[in-house]
Amino acid sequence: MGVRTPLISTEIRGEPVHIKAECLQRTGSFKLRGAWWRLTSLNETEKRAGVVAFSSGNHAQGVAWAAQRLGMPALIVMPADAPAAKVAGTRASGAEIVFYDRLTESREEIAARIAAERGAVLVPSFDDPWIVEGQGTTGLEIVEQYREAAGKEVKRIVVCCGGGGLSSGISLAAPDAEIVVVEPEGWDDMGESLRRGEIVPVEQNPPSTACDALQTLRVAELTFGILKGRGATGVSVSEAEVANAMRFAFERLKIVAEPGGAVALAAALAGKVPLDGTVLLVSGGNVDPAKFQALTA
Amino acid sequence: MGVRTPLISTEIRGEPVHIKAECLQRTGSFKLRGAWWRLTSLNETEKRAGVVAFSSGNHAQGVAWAAQRLGMPALIVMPADAPAAKVAGTRASGAEIVFYDRLTESREEIAARIAAERGAVLVPSFDDPWIVEGQGTTGLEIVEQYREAAGKEVKRIVVCCGGGGLSSGISLAAPDAEIVVVEPEGWDDMGESLRRGEIVPVEQNPPSTACDALQTLRVAELTFGILKGRGATGVSVSEAEVANAMRFAFERLKIVAEPGGAVALAAALAGKVPLDGTVLLVSGGNVDPAKFQALTA
Repeated sequence: MGVRTPLISTEIRGEPVHIKAECLQRTGSFKLRGAWWRLTSLNETEKRAGVVAFSSGNHAQGVAWAAQRLGMPALIVMPADAPAAKVAGTRASGAEIVFYDRLTESREEIAARIAAERGAVLVPSFDDPWIVEGQGTTGLEIVEQYREAAGKEVKRIVVCCGGGGLSSGISLAAPDAEIVVVEPEGWDDMGESLRRGEIVPVEQNPPSTACDALQTLRVAELTFGILKGRGATGVSVSEAEVANAMRFAFERLKIVAEPGGAVALAAALAGKVPLDGTVLLVSGGNVDPAKFQALTA
Repeated sequence: MGVRTPLISTEIRGEPVHIKAECLQRTGSFKLRGAWWRLTSLNETEKRAGVVAFSSGNHAQGVAWAAQRLGMPALIVMPADAPAAKVAGTRASGAEIVFYDRLTESREEIAARIAAERGAVLVPSFDDPWIVEGQGTTGLEIVEQYREAAGKEVKRIVVCCGGGGLSSGISLAAPDAEIVVVEPEGWDDMGESLRRGEIVPVEQNPPSTACDALQTLRVAELTFGILKGRGATGVSVSEAEVANAMRFAFERLKIVAEPGGAVALAAALAGKVPLDGTVLLVSGGNVDPAKFQALTA
Protein backbone atom coordinates (compact mmCIF):
# COMPACT_ATOMS: atom_id res chain seq x y z
CA MET A 1 0.00 0.00 0.00
CA GLY A 2 0.99 3.64 -0.16
CA VAL A 3 3.15 5.52 2.30
CA ARG A 4 2.39 8.71 4.21
CA THR A 5 4.39 11.21 2.15
CA PRO A 6 6.04 14.18 3.87
CA LEU A 7 4.61 17.68 4.01
CA ILE A 8 7.65 19.86 3.28
CA SER A 9 7.73 23.47 4.47
CA THR A 10 9.31 26.15 2.32
CA GLU A 11 8.93 29.82 1.47
CA ILE A 12 7.76 31.56 -1.68
CA ARG A 13 8.37 35.33 -1.81
CA GLY A 14 9.10 35.19 1.92
CA GLU A 15 5.76 33.60 2.75
CA PRO A 16 5.62 30.12 4.30
CA VAL A 17 3.88 27.45 2.23
CA HIS A 18 3.72 23.68 2.49
CA ILE A 19 4.32 21.11 -0.22
CA LYS A 20 2.71 17.68 -0.17
CA ALA A 21 5.40 15.62 -1.86
CA GLU A 22 3.49 12.83 -3.61
CA CYS A 23 6.45 12.33 -5.93
CA LEU A 24 7.87 10.45 -2.93
CA GLN A 25 4.90 8.08 -3.00
CA ARG A 26 5.66 4.50 -4.04
CA THR A 27 5.76 4.30 -7.88
CA GLY A 28 6.58 8.02 -7.94
CA SER A 29 3.07 9.46 -7.91
CA PHE A 30 -0.20 9.60 -5.94
CA LYS A 31 -1.78 7.17 -8.42
CA LEU A 32 -0.84 4.18 -6.31
CA ARG A 33 -3.34 5.29 -3.66
CA GLY A 34 -6.40 4.88 -5.87
CA ALA A 35 -5.08 1.77 -7.58
CA TRP A 36 -4.41 0.06 -4.24
CA TRP A 37 -7.85 1.00 -2.90
CA ARG A 38 -9.60 -0.33 -6.02
CA LEU A 39 -7.59 -3.54 -6.28
CA THR A 40 -8.01 -4.47 -2.61
CA SER A 41 -11.78 -4.22 -3.10
CA LEU A 42 -11.87 -6.98 -5.74
CA ASN A 43 -13.33 -10.37 -4.85
CA GLU A 44 -11.43 -13.64 -5.28
CA THR A 45 -12.86 -14.39 -8.74
CA GLU A 46 -11.99 -10.91 -9.97
CA LYS A 47 -8.49 -11.15 -8.52
CA ARG A 48 -7.80 -14.33 -10.46
CA ALA A 49 -8.82 -12.72 -13.78
CA GLY A 50 -6.76 -9.66 -12.98
CA VAL A 51 -7.00 -6.05 -14.08
CA VAL A 52 -6.65 -3.93 -17.21
CA ALA A 53 -5.92 -0.20 -17.27
CA PHE A 54 -5.02 2.46 -19.79
CA SER A 55 -2.63 5.23 -18.83
CA SER A 56 0.25 7.33 -20.11
CA GLY A 57 2.23 6.15 -17.14
CA ASN A 58 1.52 7.08 -13.54
CA HIS A 59 -1.76 5.22 -13.21
CA ALA A 60 -0.09 2.39 -15.12
CA GLN A 61 2.68 2.16 -12.55
CA GLY A 62 0.25 2.41 -9.64
CA VAL A 63 -1.96 -0.40 -10.97
CA ALA A 64 1.03 -2.58 -11.92
CA TRP A 65 2.67 -2.18 -8.50
CA ALA A 66 -0.54 -2.88 -6.60
CA ALA A 67 -1.38 -5.89 -8.78
CA GLN A 68 2.07 -7.39 -8.27
CA ARG A 69 1.92 -6.98 -4.48
CA LEU A 70 -1.61 -8.41 -4.40
CA GLY A 71 -0.65 -11.32 -6.65
CA MET A 72 -2.90 -10.65 -9.63
CA PRO A 73 -2.15 -10.24 -13.36
CA ALA A 74 -2.19 -6.73 -14.82
CA LEU A 75 -2.24 -5.52 -18.43
CA ILE A 76 -1.71 -1.85 -19.20
CA VAL A 77 -2.55 -0.08 -22.45
CA MET A 78 0.03 2.71 -22.88
CA PRO A 79 0.61 5.25 -25.65
CA ALA A 80 3.61 4.40 -27.84
CA ASP A 81 5.12 7.79 -26.90
CA ALA A 82 4.84 7.34 -23.11
CA PRO A 83 7.95 8.54 -21.21
CA ALA A 84 10.59 5.83 -20.96
CA ALA A 85 10.72 6.21 -17.17
CA LYS A 86 7.04 5.37 -16.93
CA VAL A 87 7.23 2.39 -19.28
CA ALA A 88 10.23 1.05 -17.37
CA GLY A 89 8.47 1.54 -14.03
CA THR A 90 5.38 -0.30 -15.25
CA ARG A 91 7.43 -3.15 -16.68
CA ALA A 92 9.49 -3.41 -13.48
CA SER A 93 6.31 -4.31 -11.62
CA GLY A 94 5.71 -7.24 -13.94
CA ALA A 95 2.75 -5.86 -15.88
CA GLU A 96 2.06 -6.81 -19.49
CA ILE A 97 2.07 -3.72 -21.73
CA VAL A 98 0.13 -3.14 -24.96
CA PHE A 99 1.09 0.01 -26.84
CA TYR A 100 -1.31 2.05 -28.98
CA ASP A 101 -1.01 5.05 -31.29
CA ARG A 102 -2.45 8.20 -29.68
CA LEU A 103 -3.52 9.62 -33.04
CA THR A 104 -5.17 6.63 -34.71
CA GLU A 105 -6.34 4.26 -31.97
CA SER A 106 -8.71 4.46 -29.01
CA ARG A 107 -7.17 3.29 -25.77
CA GLU A 108 -10.62 2.97 -24.23
CA GLU A 109 -11.68 0.53 -26.94
CA ILE A 110 -8.49 -1.50 -26.77
CA ALA A 111 -8.67 -1.75 -22.98
CA ALA A 112 -12.39 -2.62 -22.99
CA ARG A 113 -11.86 -5.33 -25.60
CA ILE A 114 -8.98 -6.95 -23.72
CA ALA A 115 -10.84 -6.74 -20.40
CA ALA A 116 -13.86 -8.45 -21.99
CA GLU A 117 -11.71 -11.19 -23.52
CA ARG A 118 -10.08 -11.97 -20.19
CA GLY A 119 -13.00 -11.34 -17.90
CA ALA A 120 -10.66 -8.83 -16.22
CA VAL A 121 -11.74 -5.73 -14.30
CA LEU A 122 -11.07 -2.43 -16.05
CA VAL A 123 -9.53 0.07 -13.61
CA PRO A 124 -10.19 3.64 -14.80
CA SER A 125 -7.68 6.32 -13.95
CA PHE A 126 -10.17 8.80 -12.48
CA ASP A 127 -13.82 8.07 -13.38
CA ASP A 128 -14.44 5.65 -10.54
CA PRO A 129 -15.58 6.25 -6.96
CA TRP A 130 -12.98 3.84 -5.55
CA ILE A 131 -10.20 5.67 -7.37
CA VAL A 132 -11.44 9.08 -6.20
CA GLU A 133 -11.69 7.82 -2.64
CA GLY A 134 -8.20 6.30 -2.77
CA GLN A 135 -6.60 9.48 -4.09
CA GLY A 136 -8.48 11.33 -1.35
CA THR A 137 -6.31 9.74 1.32
CA THR A 138 -3.77 12.38 0.27
CA GLY A 139 -6.23 14.97 1.60
CA LEU A 140 -6.68 13.19 4.93
CA GLU A 141 -2.91 13.33 5.42
CA ILE A 142 -2.70 16.98 4.39
CA VAL A 143 -5.32 18.01 6.97
CA GLU A 144 -3.48 16.18 9.75
CA GLN A 145 0.03 17.14 8.72
CA TYR A 146 -0.78 20.80 8.18
CA ARG A 147 -2.40 21.03 11.61
CA GLU A 148 0.68 19.47 13.14
CA ALA A 149 3.13 21.68 11.20
CA ALA A 150 1.33 25.03 11.30
CA GLY A 151 -0.83 24.70 14.41
CA LYS A 152 -3.96 25.69 12.48
CA GLU A 153 -6.30 24.35 9.82
CA VAL A 154 -5.30 24.27 6.17
CA LYS A 155 -7.11 27.02 4.28
CA ARG A 156 -6.40 26.17 0.67
CA ILE A 157 -5.16 23.14 -1.28
CA VAL A 158 -3.82 23.68 -4.77
CA VAL A 159 -3.92 20.50 -6.85
CA CYS A 160 -2.53 19.35 -10.20
CA CYS A 161 -5.48 18.30 -12.39
CA GLY A 162 -5.85 15.93 -15.32
CA GLY A 163 -9.15 14.09 -15.05
CA GLY A 164 -9.79 15.39 -11.53
CA GLY A 165 -9.42 12.18 -9.52
CA LEU A 166 -6.90 13.61 -7.09
CA SER A 167 -8.54 17.01 -6.71
CA SER A 168 -12.05 15.63 -6.24
CA GLY A 169 -10.78 13.06 -3.74
CA ILE A 170 -8.95 15.72 -1.77
CA SER A 171 -11.97 18.02 -1.84
CA LEU A 172 -14.03 15.29 -0.15
CA ALA A 173 -11.31 14.49 2.39
CA ALA A 174 -10.69 18.14 3.30
CA PRO A 175 -14.22 19.60 3.29
CA ASP A 176 -13.23 22.88 4.96
CA ALA A 177 -10.38 23.80 2.60
CA GLU A 178 -10.69 25.87 -0.55
CA ILE A 179 -9.75 23.77 -3.60
CA VAL A 180 -7.92 25.24 -6.59
CA VAL A 181 -7.14 22.99 -9.56
CA VAL A 182 -4.24 23.78 -11.87
CA GLU A 183 -3.86 22.69 -15.50
CA PRO A 184 -1.51 23.50 -18.38
CA GLU A 185 -2.63 26.36 -20.66
CA GLY A 186 -4.90 25.07 -23.41
CA TRP A 187 -5.61 21.91 -21.38
CA ASP A 188 -7.55 23.72 -18.64
CA ASP A 189 -10.87 22.08 -19.37
CA MET A 190 -11.66 21.38 -15.71
CA GLY A 191 -11.11 25.05 -14.85
CA GLU A 192 -13.21 26.12 -17.81
CA SER A 193 -15.93 23.59 -16.94
CA LEU A 194 -16.04 24.92 -13.37
CA ARG A 195 -16.34 28.50 -14.69
CA ARG A 196 -19.19 27.57 -17.06
CA GLY A 197 -20.94 25.19 -14.67
CA GLU A 198 -20.94 22.35 -17.20
CA ILE A 199 -18.39 20.00 -18.71
CA VAL A 200 -16.52 21.37 -21.70
CA PRO A 201 -13.84 19.25 -23.36
CA VAL A 202 -10.38 20.43 -24.37
CA GLU A 203 -10.64 22.36 -27.65
CA GLN A 204 -9.47 20.77 -30.89
CA ASN A 205 -5.75 20.97 -31.61
CA PRO A 206 -4.62 21.84 -28.09
CA PRO A 207 -1.08 23.21 -27.73
CA SER A 208 1.73 20.77 -27.09
CA THR A 209 2.66 20.45 -23.43
CA ALA A 210 5.39 18.72 -21.44
CA CYS A 211 2.71 17.68 -18.93
CA ASP A 212 2.07 14.19 -20.30
CA ALA A 213 0.19 13.22 -17.14
CA LEU A 214 -2.42 15.97 -17.59
CA GLN A 215 -3.44 15.49 -21.21
CA THR A 216 -7.02 14.49 -20.45
CA LEU A 217 -9.40 15.55 -23.21
CA ARG A 218 -12.56 15.46 -21.10
CA VAL A 219 -13.22 15.21 -17.37
CA ALA A 220 -15.85 12.92 -15.84
CA GLU A 221 -19.30 13.75 -14.47
CA LEU A 222 -18.11 12.17 -11.21
CA THR A 223 -15.03 14.31 -10.66
CA PHE A 224 -16.51 17.48 -12.15
CA GLY A 225 -19.67 17.10 -10.06
CA ILE A 226 -17.70 16.77 -6.82
CA LEU A 227 -15.49 19.77 -7.56
CA LYS A 228 -18.43 21.91 -8.72
CA GLY A 229 -20.33 21.01 -5.55
CA ARG A 230 -17.35 22.13 -3.48
CA GLY A 231 -17.04 25.47 -5.32
CA ALA A 232 -13.56 24.66 -6.64
CA THR A 233 -11.90 27.09 -9.04
CA GLY A 234 -9.17 26.64 -11.65
CA VAL A 235 -6.10 28.41 -12.97
CA SER A 236 -3.74 27.53 -15.80
CA VAL A 237 0.04 27.75 -16.15
CA SER A 238 2.42 28.17 -19.07
CA GLU A 239 5.14 25.74 -20.08
CA ALA A 240 7.77 28.21 -18.87
CA GLU A 241 6.07 28.43 -15.48
CA VAL A 242 6.09 24.63 -15.26
CA ALA A 243 9.81 24.48 -16.04
CA ASN A 244 10.48 27.14 -13.42
CA ALA A 245 8.61 25.06 -10.83
CA MET A 246 10.59 21.94 -11.73
CA ARG A 247 13.81 23.92 -11.16
CA PHE A 248 12.52 25.27 -7.84
CA ALA A 249 11.65 21.74 -6.71
CA PHE A 250 15.14 20.51 -7.59
CA GLU A 251 17.11 23.44 -6.20
CA ARG A 252 15.09 24.39 -3.14
CA LEU A 253 13.07 21.34 -2.16
CA LYS A 254 15.51 18.65 -3.38
CA ILE A 255 12.67 16.67 -4.89
CA VAL A 256 12.07 15.61 -8.48
CA ALA A 257 8.83 16.92 -9.97
CA GLU A 258 7.64 15.80 -13.39
CA PRO A 259 6.01 18.50 -15.56
CA GLY A 260 2.43 17.53 -14.76
CA GLY A 261 3.34 17.14 -11.10
CA ALA A 262 4.74 20.67 -10.93
CA VAL A 263 1.75 22.72 -12.13
CA ALA A 264 0.38 23.57 -8.66
CA LEU A 265 3.82 24.76 -7.53
CA ALA A 266 4.09 26.65 -10.83
CA ALA A 267 0.84 28.51 -10.14
CA ALA A 268 2.09 29.52 -6.69
CA LEU A 269 5.48 30.69 -7.97
CA ALA A 270 3.75 32.69 -10.72
CA GLY A 271 1.57 34.49 -8.17
CA LYS A 272 -1.64 32.94 -9.48
CA VAL A 273 -2.89 31.60 -6.14
CA PRO A 274 -2.83 33.13 -2.63
CA LEU A 275 -0.17 31.61 -0.36
CA ASP A 276 -1.59 32.03 3.14
CA GLY A 277 -2.57 28.74 4.73
CA THR A 278 -1.81 26.99 1.47
CA VAL A 279 -0.69 23.45 0.67
CA LEU A 280 0.60 22.77 -2.85
CA LEU A 281 0.58 19.29 -4.32
CA VAL A 282 3.63 17.99 -6.11
CA SER A 283 1.79 15.00 -7.47
CA GLY A 284 4.44 13.02 -9.35
CA GLY A 285 8.13 12.74 -10.17
CA ASN A 286 8.31 10.31 -13.06
CA VAL A 287 10.40 12.22 -15.56
CA ASP A 288 13.36 10.98 -17.60
CA PRO A 289 16.57 12.73 -16.48
CA ALA A 290 17.25 13.82 -20.09
CA LYS A 291 13.79 15.33 -20.44
CA PHE A 292 14.17 17.03 -17.07
CA GLN A 293 17.43 18.55 -18.22
CA ALA A 294 16.03 19.65 -21.58
CA LEU A 295 13.07 21.36 -19.94
CA THR A 296 14.93 23.12 -17.14
CA ALA A 297 18.21 24.08 -18.85
CA MET B 1 15.13 24.04 14.03
CA GLY B 2 15.41 20.98 11.86
CA VAL B 3 12.59 18.79 10.64
CA ARG B 4 12.11 15.05 11.01
CA THR B 5 13.12 13.88 7.56
CA PRO B 6 11.39 10.87 5.98
CA LEU B 7 12.76 7.35 5.94
CA ILE B 8 12.05 6.21 2.38
CA SER B 9 11.75 2.50 1.60
CA THR B 10 13.10 1.12 -1.64
CA GLU B 11 14.71 -2.00 -3.06
CA ILE B 12 18.23 -2.71 -4.23
CA ARG B 13 18.72 -5.98 -6.13
CA GLY B 14 15.29 -7.03 -4.89
CA GLU B 15 16.20 -6.55 -1.24
CA PRO B 16 14.36 -3.94 0.84
CA VAL B 17 16.49 -1.08 2.21
CA HIS B 18 15.64 2.23 3.81
CA ILE B 19 16.98 5.66 2.94
CA LYS B 20 17.19 8.46 5.50
CA ALA B 21 16.63 11.48 3.24
CA GLU B 22 18.57 14.26 4.94
CA CYS B 23 18.67 16.13 1.63
CA LEU B 24 15.10 17.05 2.59
CA GLN B 25 16.37 18.68 5.79
CA ARG B 26 16.09 22.48 5.96
CA THR B 27 19.07 24.03 4.10
CA GLY B 28 19.37 20.81 2.08
CA SER B 29 21.60 18.80 4.42
CA PHE B 30 21.88 17.35 7.93
CA LYS B 31 24.30 20.15 8.89
CA LEU B 32 21.49 22.31 10.22
CA ARG B 33 20.98 19.86 13.09
CA GLY B 34 24.39 20.43 14.64
CA ALA B 35 24.42 24.16 13.89
CA TRP B 36 21.05 24.66 15.54
CA TRP B 37 22.07 22.65 18.59
CA ARG B 38 25.31 24.62 18.99
CA LEU B 39 23.77 28.06 18.42
CA THR B 40 20.88 27.51 20.80
CA SER B 41 23.42 26.73 23.52
CA LEU B 42 25.09 30.16 23.32
CA ASN B 43 24.54 32.66 26.13
CA GLU B 44 23.18 36.16 25.57
CA THR B 45 26.63 37.82 25.34
CA GLU B 46 27.79 35.24 22.82
CA LYS B 47 24.61 35.61 20.78
CA ARG B 48 25.17 39.36 20.41
CA ALA B 49 28.71 38.87 19.10
CA GLY B 50 27.50 36.18 16.72
CA VAL B 51 29.21 33.23 15.09
CA VAL B 52 31.94 32.47 12.58
CA ALA B 53 32.31 29.24 10.64
CA PHE B 54 34.34 27.86 7.75
CA SER B 55 32.76 25.47 5.29
CA SER B 56 32.57 24.54 1.64
CA GLY B 57 28.85 24.95 1.87
CA ASN B 58 26.53 22.69 3.82
CA HIS B 59 27.75 23.63 7.28
CA ALA B 60 27.80 27.24 6.04
CA GLN B 61 24.14 27.08 5.13
CA GLY B 62 23.22 25.35 8.37
CA VAL B 63 24.98 27.94 10.51
CA ALA B 64 23.64 30.86 8.44
CA TRP B 65 20.06 29.61 8.60
CA ALA B 66 20.19 28.93 12.34
CA ALA B 67 21.83 32.31 13.05
CA GLN B 68 19.19 34.16 11.05
CA ARG B 69 16.32 32.40 12.84
CA LEU B 70 17.94 32.99 16.21
CA GLY B 71 18.66 36.65 15.42
CA MET B 72 22.45 36.64 15.55
CA PRO B 73 25.08 37.75 13.04
CA ALA B 74 26.99 35.07 11.12
CA LEU B 75 30.13 35.21 9.01
CA ILE B 76 31.17 32.24 6.90
CA VAL B 77 34.61 31.62 5.40
CA MET B 78 34.05 29.72 2.13
CA PRO B 79 36.43 28.49 -0.57
CA ALA B 80 36.33 30.61 -3.72
CA ASP B 81 35.40 27.47 -5.70
CA ALA B 82 32.43 26.51 -3.51
CA PRO B 83 29.39 25.32 -5.51
CA ALA B 84 27.17 28.23 -6.59
CA ALA B 85 24.11 26.56 -5.01
CA LYS B 86 25.82 26.52 -1.62
CA VAL B 87 27.05 30.13 -1.84
CA ALA B 88 23.55 31.25 -2.86
CA GLY B 89 21.95 29.28 -0.04
CA THR B 90 24.32 30.79 2.52
CA ARG B 91 23.75 34.31 1.21
CA ALA B 92 19.97 33.81 1.17
CA SER B 93 20.09 33.35 4.94
CA GLY B 94 21.73 36.74 5.35
CA ALA B 95 25.22 35.59 6.32
CA GLU B 96 28.32 37.59 5.51
CA ILE B 97 30.73 35.57 3.32
CA VAL B 98 34.52 35.81 3.14
CA PHE B 99 36.11 33.81 0.34
CA TYR B 100 39.57 32.22 0.52
CA ASP B 101 41.82 30.34 -1.87
CA ARG B 102 41.95 26.60 -1.04
CA LEU B 103 45.53 26.28 -2.28
CA THR B 104 47.23 29.29 -0.71
CA GLU B 105 45.23 30.28 2.37
CA SER B 106 44.23 28.58 5.61
CA ARG B 107 40.53 28.81 6.33
CA GLU B 108 41.16 27.88 9.95
CA GLU B 109 43.48 30.87 10.39
CA ILE B 110 41.15 33.29 8.63
CA ALA B 111 38.16 32.16 10.67
CA ALA B 112 40.08 32.22 13.96
CA ARG B 113 41.37 35.75 13.28
CA ILE B 114 37.91 37.10 12.42
CA ALA B 115 36.33 35.38 15.42
CA ALA B 116 38.98 36.90 17.71
CA GLU B 117 38.47 40.38 16.24
CA ARG B 118 34.71 40.22 16.78
CA GLY B 119 34.63 38.25 20.00
CA ALA B 120 32.47 35.83 18.02
CA VAL B 121 32.13 32.11 18.69
CA LEU B 122 33.80 29.83 16.14
CA VAL B 123 31.46 26.98 15.18
CA PRO B 124 33.48 24.00 13.87
CA SER B 125 31.88 21.74 11.30
CA PHE B 126 32.60 18.47 13.14
CA ASP B 127 35.24 18.75 15.87
CA ASP B 128 32.83 19.84 18.62
CA PRO B 129 30.71 17.79 21.03
CA TRP B 130 27.66 20.00 20.45
CA ILE B 131 27.90 19.50 16.72
CA VAL B 132 28.32 15.73 17.04
CA GLU B 133 25.36 15.57 19.39
CA GLY B 134 23.22 17.69 17.09
CA GLN B 135 23.99 15.56 14.02
CA GLY B 136 23.22 12.53 16.16
CA THR B 137 19.52 13.46 16.26
CA THR B 138 19.45 11.90 12.78
CA GLY B 139 20.26 8.59 14.47
CA LEU B 140 17.50 8.94 17.06
CA GLU B 141 15.01 9.37 14.22
CA ILE B 142 16.43 6.43 12.26
CA VAL B 143 16.03 4.07 15.23
CA GLU B 144 12.39 5.11 15.72
CA GLN B 145 11.45 5.28 12.06
CA TYR B 146 13.06 1.97 11.16
CA ARG B 147 11.26 0.21 14.00
CA GLU B 148 7.97 1.69 12.82
CA ALA B 149 8.59 0.85 9.14
CA ALA B 150 10.16 -2.59 9.43
CA GLY B 151 8.82 -3.83 12.76
CA LYS B 152 12.32 -4.64 14.00
CA GLU B 153 15.52 -2.94 15.10
CA VAL B 154 17.88 -1.37 12.60
CA LYS B 155 20.93 -3.58 12.17
CA ARG B 156 23.28 -1.38 10.19
CA ILE B 157 23.56 2.34 9.35
CA VAL B 158 25.72 3.35 6.40
CA VAL B 159 26.83 6.98 6.63
CA CYS B 160 28.53 9.48 4.32
CA CYS B 161 31.72 10.66 6.02
CA GLY B 162 33.85 13.80 5.75
CA GLY B 163 35.09 14.75 9.22
CA GLY B 164 32.89 12.20 10.92
CA GLY B 165 30.45 14.48 12.73
CA LEU B 166 27.35 12.79 11.35
CA SER B 167 28.64 9.23 11.63
CA SER B 168 29.96 9.63 15.17
CA GLY B 169 26.73 11.35 16.26
CA ILE B 170 24.64 8.57 14.78
CA SER B 171 26.85 5.91 16.35
CA LEU B 172 26.13 7.40 19.79
CA ALA B 173 22.40 7.75 19.11
CA ALA B 174 22.02 4.22 17.74
CA PRO B 175 24.29 2.21 20.04
CA ASP B 176 23.03 -1.20 18.89
CA ALA B 177 23.51 -0.64 15.16
CA GLU B 178 26.62 -1.50 13.17
CA ILE B 179 28.14 1.69 11.70
CA VAL B 180 29.79 1.77 8.28
CA VAL B 181 31.29 5.04 7.04
CA VAL B 182 31.67 5.70 3.32
CA GLU B 183 34.17 8.06 1.68
CA PRO B 184 35.32 8.80 -1.87
CA GLU B 185 38.33 6.80 -3.08
CA GLY B 186 41.58 8.51 -2.09
CA TRP B 187 39.73 10.54 0.57
CA ASP B 188 38.97 7.54 2.78
CA ASP B 189 41.11 8.65 5.69
CA MET B 190 38.47 7.81 8.30
CA GLY B 191 38.18 4.29 6.97
CA GLU B 192 41.96 3.93 6.86
CA SER B 193 42.28 5.41 10.36
CA LEU B 194 39.74 2.90 11.68
CA ARG B 195 41.66 0.05 10.02
CA ARG B 196 44.98 1.19 11.52
CA GLY B 197 43.58 2.18 14.91
CA GLU B 198 45.07 5.67 14.71
CA ILE B 199 44.41 8.85 12.77
CA VAL B 200 46.03 9.04 9.36
CA PRO B 201 45.41 12.07 7.17
CA VAL B 202 44.53 12.03 3.48
CA GLU B 203 47.68 11.38 1.44
CA GLN B 204 49.31 14.21 -0.47
CA ASN B 205 47.82 15.01 -3.88
CA PRO B 206 44.54 13.16 -3.41
CA PRO B 207 42.52 12.46 -6.58
CA SER B 208 39.95 15.03 -7.66
CA THR B 209 36.43 14.20 -6.55
CA ALA B 210 32.97 15.60 -7.18
CA CYS B 211 32.26 15.13 -3.46
CA ASP B 212 33.05 18.69 -2.37
CA ALA B 213 31.39 18.09 1.00
CA LEU B 214 33.72 15.24 1.91
CA GLN B 215 37.13 16.75 1.17
CA THR B 216 38.33 16.71 4.77
CA LEU B 217 42.09 16.26 5.00
CA ARG B 218 42.16 14.99 8.57
CA VAL B 219 39.49 13.75 10.96
CA ALA B 220 39.29 14.80 14.62
CA GLU B 221 40.29 12.88 17.74
CA LEU B 222 36.72 13.39 18.92
CA THR B 223 34.93 11.84 15.94
CA PHE B 224 37.59 9.17 15.30
CA GLY B 225 37.59 8.18 18.95
CA ILE B 226 33.84 7.71 19.05
CA LEU B 227 33.77 5.65 15.85
CA LYS B 228 36.76 3.55 16.91
CA GLY B 229 35.09 2.86 20.25
CA ARG B 230 31.99 1.69 18.45
CA GLY B 231 33.93 -0.64 16.15
CA ALA B 232 32.90 1.21 13.01
CA THR B 233 34.35 0.19 9.65
CA GLY B 234 34.81 2.05 6.39
CA VAL B 235 34.51 1.50 2.66
CA SER B 236 35.27 3.76 -0.28
CA VAL B 237 33.47 4.42 -3.57
CA SER B 238 34.57 5.53 -7.02
CA GLU B 239 33.37 8.65 -8.82
CA ALA B 240 31.40 6.47 -11.25
CA GLU B 241 29.67 4.74 -8.35
CA VAL B 242 28.75 8.13 -6.89
CA ALA B 243 27.25 9.28 -10.22
CA ASN B 244 25.29 6.03 -10.45
CA ALA B 245 23.85 6.66 -6.98
CA MET B 246 22.85 10.22 -7.90
CA ARG B 247 20.97 8.83 -10.90
CA PHE B 248 19.29 6.16 -8.76
CA ALA B 249 18.18 8.81 -6.27
CA PHE B 250 16.69 10.93 -9.06
CA GLU B 251 15.03 8.14 -11.01
CA ARG B 252 13.90 5.79 -8.29
CA LEU B 253 13.63 7.83 -5.10
CA LYS B 254 12.72 11.19 -6.68
CA ILE B 255 15.16 12.99 -4.43
CA VAL B 256 18.18 15.13 -5.27
CA ALA B 257 21.47 13.82 -3.85
CA GLU B 258 24.67 15.83 -4.12
CA PRO B 259 27.85 13.82 -4.81
CA GLY B 260 29.02 13.75 -1.19
CA GLY B 261 25.48 12.97 -0.06
CA ALA B 262 25.26 9.95 -2.34
CA VAL B 263 28.30 7.91 -1.24
CA ALA B 264 26.44 5.64 1.21
CA LEU B 265 23.84 4.82 -1.43
CA ALA B 266 26.71 4.32 -3.90
CA ALA B 267 28.33 1.76 -1.62
CA ALA B 268 25.06 -0.16 -1.34
CA LEU B 269 24.41 -0.11 -5.09
CA ALA B 270 27.98 -1.30 -5.71
CA GLY B 271 27.50 -4.27 -3.40
CA LYS B 272 30.07 -3.01 -0.89
CA VAL B 273 27.84 -3.22 2.19
CA PRO B 274 25.27 -5.86 3.27
CA LEU B 275 21.66 -4.75 2.76
CA ASP B 276 19.73 -6.68 5.40
CA GLY B 277 18.34 -4.42 8.13
CA THR B 278 20.22 -1.50 6.58
CA VAL B 279 19.54 2.24 6.56
CA LEU B 280 21.51 4.35 4.09
CA LEU B 281 22.03 8.06 4.65
CA VAL B 282 21.50 10.48 1.79
CA SER B 283 23.04 13.34 3.68
CA GLY B 284 22.66 16.34 1.37
CA GLY B 285 21.19 17.59 -1.90
CA ASN B 286 22.95 20.87 -2.56
CA VAL B 287 24.17 20.42 -6.11
CA ASP B 288 23.88 22.85 -9.02
CA PRO B 289 21.52 21.46 -11.69
CA ALA B 290 24.22 21.89 -14.34
CA LYS B 291 26.76 19.97 -12.25
CA PHE B 292 24.18 17.28 -11.56
CA GLN B 293 23.55 16.93 -15.27
CA ALA B 294 27.25 16.86 -16.15
CA LEU B 295 27.93 14.13 -13.58
CA THR B 296 24.96 11.91 -14.38
CA ALA B 297 24.69 12.25 -18.17
